[in-house]
Amino acid sequence: MSSMLPNVLSSSTSNTSVADELSSSNETYVTKRGAKLNLESIGPKPTKKVALICCMDARIDAFSAFGFKEGESHVIRNGGGRASDSIRSLVISQQQLGTDEIIIMHHTDCGFFTFTEDKFRQTLKSNGYPGPDVDLMSFMPMSADDIDESVKEDVEYLKNHALIKKDSKISGWVNDLKDGSVRRVV
Amino acid sequence: MSSMLPNVLSSSTSNTSVADELSSSNETYVTKRGAKLNLESIGPKPTKKVALICCMDARIDAFSAFGFKEGESHVIRNGGGRASDSIRSLVISQQQLGTDEIIIMHHTDCGFFTFTEDKFRQTLKSNGYPGPDVDLMSFMPMSADDIDESVKEDVEYLKNHALIKKDSKISGWVNDLKDGSVRRVV
Repeated sequence: MSSMLPNVLSSSTSNTSVADELSSSNETYVTKRGAKLNLESIGPKPTKKVALICCMDARIDAFSAFGFKEGESHVIRNGGGRASDSIRSLVISQQQLGTDEIIIMHHTDCGFFTFTEDKFRQTLKSNGYPGPDVDLMSFMPMSADDIDESVKEDVEYLKNHALIKKDSKISGWVNDLKDGSVRRVV
Repeated sequence: MSSMLPNVLSSSTSNTSVADELSSSNETYVTKRGAKLNLESIGPKPTKKVALICCMDARIDAFSAFGFKEGESHVIRNGGGRASDSIRSLVISQQQLGTDEIIIMHHTDCGFFTFTEDKFRQTLKSNGYPGPDVDLMSFMPMSADDIDESVKEDVEYLKNHALIKKDSKISGWVNDLKDGSVRRVV
């Protein structure tokens, strides 16, 4: 039996999807925390009246890193943590769910520093993805040299957007992935 | 002094933004966890090769509830946890950062069950927001009666999208906010 173990493990690892593990991972949360909280009793309106925008990056545990507990803050996440990709969510956050503050957070070592729009589109097309679909999409790469600038641009974008409340409190930040620390830019 | 305390506290509460508290909340994370992890050494490619899509809802602590640690999974969050609002992020997740699995999670008691597109647009216009901007935006409300259906629709949307990898493992789930538990739909 013991001689078969490495193969069994290896086969199991390569065929298993994360989805197959999700229910058991979730059970720990439900037992330890979720069932006690009765999340519906907290309600859908964020108690701190804030919406956080940050990158989808796998290294960012938004609740822990930025100090939120269940019920306190909307969390909008997309590639780069971009404002222009968050407007639909923000309007509902503000108009239906009562938030009046926006925190936007970009970060160091971002995957969106690793490509340019033109070259990325070319690569997709040469890999067989249809040109019209590729050209319709703006992938929104950023420059590692201008991280403060991209934060400022996104704050300005929100301040000037026709569908964002004029009296919103808006701040812009950089999250340093060396140690997870944050620095306010604007 | 003690008689002044309630006013001082009350004034401080009403004027304080969440942004003012963020640095000190974050210090705890940096000291206890971030600085030890050296997040940049983990790298931007999710180690579990998965991208999770879920709602911005404030009650969802995605890392804890779904069992992820720093570095393991992209986390894309928007109003409702909608696939069509995640494509830009997903394409970069797959093409630049090596993911091949997508987990999409809708949830009970969602804020996106609370309005209809037409009435919401009318309300925005009557509150002074410019009609052309309002009409350009699809706010994507959902029906509480059809939560399994909306999950299935979003999975199908991803399976048929021209820019999503054809061999992606895609599963659809409902997160029950009574206790935080998850149920796989497809």
